[in-house]
Amino acid sequence: MREIEGGITAPRGFEAAGVHCGIKKRDPDLALIYSSHPAVACGMFTSNKVKAAPIRVSLRKLRNGQAQAIVINSGNANTCTGRQGIKDAEEMARLTARHLGISENEVLVASTGVIGKPLPLSKIAEGIGKAGQSLSAQGGGEAARAILTTDTTTKEISVETGIAGRGKKKVKLGGMCKGAGMISPNLATMLCFVTTDACISPDALQEAIHSATGKSFNQISVDGDMSTNDTLLVLANGLAGNKRIKTWHKKKKRKVKDENFDIFSQALDFVLIHLAKLIVTDGEGATKLIEVKVNGAPFPQDARRIARAIANSTLVKTALAGASPNWGRVMSALGAAHTKINPDKVDIYFDNLAVVRRGEGAGAKEETLREVLKKKEIMITVDLNQGLSSTTFWGCDLTEKYVRINKSYL
Amino acid sequence: MREIEGGITAPRGFEAAGVHCGIKKRDPDLALIYSSHPAVACGMFTSNKVKAAPIRVSLRKLRNGQAQAIVINSGNANTCTGRQGIKDAEEMARLTARHLGISENEVLVASTGVIGKPLPLSKIAEGIGKAGQSLSAQGGGEAARAILTTDTTTKEISVETGIAGRGKKKVKLGGMCKGAGMISPNLATMLCFVTTDACISPDALQEAIHSATGKSFNQISVDGDMSTNDTLLVLANGLAGNKRIKTWHKKKKRKVKDENFDIFSQALDFVLIHLAKLIVTDGEGATKLIEVKVNGAPFPQDARRIARAIANSTLVKTALAGASPNWGRVMSALGAAHTKINPDKVDIYFDNLAVVRRGEGAGAKEETLREVLKKKEIMITVDLNQGLSSTTFWGCDLTEKYVRINKSYL
Repeated sequence: MREIEGGITAPRGFEAAGVHCGIKKRDPDLALIYSSHPAVACGMFTSNKVKAAPIRVSLRKLRNGQAQAIVINSGNANTCTGRQGIKDAEEMARLTARHLGISENEVLVASTGVIGKPLPLSKIAEGIGKAGQSLSAQGGGEAARAILTTDTTTKEISVETGIAGRGKKKVKLGGMCKGAGMISPNLATMLCFVTTDACISPDALQEAIHSATGKSFNQISVDGDMSTNDTLLVLANGLAGNKRIKTWHKKKKRKVKDENFDIFSQALDFVLIHLAKLIVTDGEGATKLIEVKVNGAPFPQDARRIARAIANSTLVKTALAGASPNWGRVMSALGAAHTKINPDKVDIYFDNLAVVRRGEGAGAKEETLREVLKKKEIMITVDLNQGLSSTTFWGCDLTEKYVRINKSYL
Repeated sequence: MREIEGGITAPRGFEAAGVHCGIKKRDPDLALIYSSHPAVACGMFTSNKVKAAPIRVSLRKLRNGQAQAIVINSGNANTCTGRQGIKDAEEMARLTARHLGISENEVLVASTGVIGKPLPLSKIAEGIGKAGQSLSAQGGGEAARAILTTDTTTKEISVETGIAGRGKKKVKLGGMCKGAGMISPNLATMLCFVTTDACISPDALQEAIHSATGKSFNQISVDGDMSTNDTLLVLANGLAGNKRIKTWHKKKKRKVKDENFDIFSQALDFVLIHLAKLIVTDGEGATKLIEVKVNGAPFPQDARRIARAIANSTLVKTALAGASPNWGRVMSALGAAHTKINPDKVDIYFDNLAVVRRGEGAGAKEETLREVLKKKEIMITVDLNQGLSSTTFWGCDLTEKYVRINKSYL
């Protein structure tokens, strides 16, 4: 597997565009992704009980497992907008379908931005027209720009990986995402779109997405808030011409694992983990990426709860913002997670520096600790020493700037 | 019931002192509470798995259900300090007992401050001597000052209430507490001490405490972090001379409720809710007290989860700090709480102003909303309209100042 250029338009047969249609004052606010051929389509969505209208609409359209385009607006979440919101999201899909000459059932919809405002549909209609005309196989970057809200940079990645079998085909994956605030486990105000030219069965694609999400977007947090609009959509159009990837193959009447599934899965893991880390790195007001590794937990859920509790603790996050070597806050956060672990067995490291041994201060020098904590990326490793489960979780520090951004953002 | 002066030294037979012994640079850092007669003693402690040494020691001492003194230091939490920490906490009790001429089993211990530093025992020994000499029946205020950390004000209350029965006795309750950061449900870096001259059985006292805590300290949050040192201790010395309060009385061989239990319980509720609200009002960097009322929930735990999720949401808290009328964040927070509620039935009010009706914006004017949100006390009422359970929870806003305080506090 190697990184390549092009973002979501790197895989064969995908075009994209990003335009300004006036939902936001100046910045691009409407993106379009188009596949020249119908693609296998799968998605994952927020577990928030309050779900945005476009999510309800896309969920319905995904039932047939196929799509050819995705239309996305930023600046307005189309959430808590009642029946009108649903109608508006459907209309977005209809307008896009008409422009592209495809069925409206093949168009997925996503929105991000302020909650509770009606969607300015005439502007969006204009934007869809514009975007339809500027679709291009180099449009990945523009699309990535048009989906941003409080993000400070676009978030893209594309990779190519070799698939085993006749002709040794190469498949490509491209991904883009947005998200900076309201990021929390179980997806976030996070929109993520992945394209691939791999030929893959819907079941295999869904399983790969599920597994990759568990290692990436469900393992990050900017502020512990879970959004109403979180959406991950993947289109696989099969133009790489590889033998269809399944989870299982039949070989002499026995079921064996498809080795290409693992290859594809690893590539998808890489893409989603890369994008997830870009989100926390660009967390609102964040100055540091925090990687929390928890090892030696009795059960996987203990590891996850503890990692999440540490990464979400406002006291840990502010301490890291100030490079304050206050490991007691890490101990306190892990003790407060709902687990049955014994804190007297715990070791904690900041990068490679031991700060806690068996639940007590390891005597690390304050100045040395401060130097470690001044870095842009900090790894907190917690060895619980009471089991075999482990996990990795990413978060960021909490600064005055986060508060400033969110005090005024309406 | 009426409020009276005096704090924890208002009830008969209690003396207190607060002195400076050098754990902190300048401020008083050691407090002593003493009852002239052995008192019924009950406590509640943090549910954090990481428990401070003084908590482990006090838990042991509370087994006999009786105590005559409490010694408290601020500036050092005596947490994550291993066996030495336990020895130090025991030594604090022993020194206090020797000074007061009582048994060391009758002395409870509490600490608050930085985690992971050894307790400066010689300073504390000196402080205990000083405090022992300055004990006075007017010492409530001084003691209240000596337990503070990042608090900006002392937190005290005392009340008097009439008890039914022969002689119509009056009983008094006095309380003091500290806590400003690391405040979260299930107690917090919260120390609370209540004295009363009521004569009450240990069982009745424990039940009254349990009930009052559920309505007060378990219903507040400053930052979602749960401390390792949370302690609530109550001493009841019986000097009011009332007939012993029990939960139940035997009347003609039948068990009937003791009406005085309700009277005492109400007074304790009042004292603890008052102190709990003082804590959030003084939350680190807070400028507003937020009262979240959730009505119409299917089950009590739904109401509590939703109220807590709203009060803990950093996005809600920053919006309130900026008087930003962003009710979408309240909807998002309630949807993210782990419940099965239907968001399409929800009404939300900021004070008396409807902002959400049946899950959609109620069309409140932004300027009007901003005026409401500029107040020092804001009530957010959520009517779920899908059951009969309700709850009240208190929180505060999140400001740049919170971040500033916690970036540097070691």
